[in-house]
Amino acid sequence: MSDPLANWERRKKPATLSRRFDFPDYAATRQFLDELADLSEADNLYPNISFGSTYATLTIEAPEDSGIGEREEGFALKVDGLIGA
Amino acid sequence: MSDPLANWERRKKPATLSRRFDFPDYAATRQFLDELADLSEADNLYPNISFGSTYATLTIEAPEDSGIGEREEGFALKVDGLIGA
Repeated sequence: MSDPLANWERRKKPATLSRRFDFPDYAATRQFLDELADLSEADNLYPNISFGSTYATLTIEAPEDSGIGEREEGFALKVDGLIGA
Repeated sequence: MSDPLANWERRKKPATLSRRFDFPDYAATRQFLDELADLSEADNLYPNISFGSTYATLTIEAPEDSGIGEREEGFALKVDGLIGA
């Protein structure tokens, strides 16, 4: 079975999970950011986000005392779900 | 008279105008980002923005063929106006 998070980049020290999303226009970017904000509030998980008019890059950090775990991976999958990919 | 953009950092090559804003909680951060998005749409000016739960850093880039001008500085002042500082 393929890795469901194959589109995300994993780094260590500090442990992060990140992915860049590109959009056709600002309206699509803003819709994604709005839905992402709702997701963050629901899960109480706030990634670092960099964005411009047609892209957004998320970086999910691991909790200080552990690595990337099910909570972070589950959040990443939900983010993928926002764009259907 | 003091520089009205003294809180912004100016860089060259590429020419940018940037400032970090800190907030007491995510609700305040999100409100700022929402108002900033409205401002971007009104002025058709989309800075690069990095944010986490309690901060946002804006970087306004100059147009390719010029430096930071009145349009970018005016936008920065409007952003300051969002937080009353």
